[in-house]
Amino acid sequence: MTRRTPTGAAVLQPTVTKAITEAVLDELAENGYARLSMEAVAKRAGVGKSALYRRWSSKQEMAISVISEFGAEQVTVPDTGSLRGDLRAALGTLMKWLTHPRFSRIMADLVAETARNAKLGEAVETLVGMPKRERVAAMFHRAIARGELPADTDLELALDLLAAPLYWRLVVRSAAADPTYIDDLTDALLRSFTRRPHDR
Amino acid sequence: MTRRTPTGAAVLQPTVTKAITEAVLDELAENGYARLSMEAVAKRAGVGKSALYRRWSSKQEMAISVISEFGAEQVTVPDTGSLRGDLRAALGTLMKWLTHPRFSRIMADLVAETARNAKLGEAVETLVGMPKRERVAAMFHRAIARGELPADTDLELALDLLAAPLYWRLVVRSAAADPTYIDDLTDALLRSFTRRPHDR
Repeated sequence: MTRRTPTGAAVLQPTVTKAITEAVLDELAENGYARLSMEAVAKRAGVGKSALYRRWSSKQEMAISVISEFGAEQVTVPDTGSLRGDLRAALGTLMKWLTHPRFSRIMADLVAETARNAKLGEAVETLVGMPKRERVAAMFHRAIARGELPADTDLELALDLLAAPLYWRLVVRSAAADPTYIDDLTDALLRSFTRRPHDR
Repeated sequence: MTRRTPTGAAVLQPTVTKAITEAVLDELAENGYARLSMEAVAKRAGVGKSALYRRWSSKQEMAISVISEFGAEQVTVPDTGSLRGDLRAALGTLMKWLTHPRFSRIMADLVAETARNAKLGEAVETLVGMPKRERVAAMFHRAIARGELPADTDLELALDLLAAPLYWRLVVRSAAADPTYIDDLTDALLRSFTRRPHDR
């Protein structure tokens, strides 16, 4: 998506792209974004730096492109037919993703980096966060269509409530979450989404 | 709390402790935990390294001691007389804390570091996270005593739900939270905590 059109006769070989992608993820997990360099990635992938610059114009572009594709693979929200089922499945997927050793390190490091670098923060939110939120929002649109949620459900808040507790627990607190915790969280979120006539 | 008893005639002067504390926080915010050193802190505080070692035996002990005291100041949960009032106040305080430029950087950096260093993660959870959770839990105990929440309320889950959304939104997503968002979050949390007979 942020790849450049190859110039001249160069063609972007998928096996080279794959090797570079793995090298970027390894470098991010081991050394972090601040110390990521085109040199180190090229060396680790066993390619020349020109192979990197044919694909991305900068370190930031390279990192965000690789992270957004890696993250996207992990975001699958199956259509189970009920909001409870979809929620439980989404939390299960999120759990896998946040306990993935490589990804949890990369994510925590990136969050720390965005606290120092507002431009990187914006790019991560626009290119990684927002597409992910749109995919997950489909779950809430289906629930609204089925009449399980009111049409004026605050999706912005609902998406925060969905993603936040497991991130907080697993990544920030380094605590564990067993299946019972995820079941209880599912129930708590369902209650939080469902406004009832006697509320407020 | 993790301070050593002064040996010999040495007395720990509060003004020196204050200068060192500020230096630790500045170093953590600017350079992060990984690059924190006793040398840099001593230099910034204008004291000798011995002044540091009289107080703490290691970099980790020093950092956690300073962070836990800094964090503790920010955790005040006023007793407003209702769970809604307490929740709204707690979220307002958390918001201030998470948007504090120095603290949000330190916290994000520390989370990234704990992803690489499990021992540090345990120490942060035990010495910083747990005391904070105990202070905030008082709010839920008061609500149970008033009959606003059932006695078997899952405090572990409730505490995660309380802290997580603002951390996710403000620190991870670098998004903003206006007072309406905090009001809506308060309502959503209240619903999530309150089990009703027709649930489940």
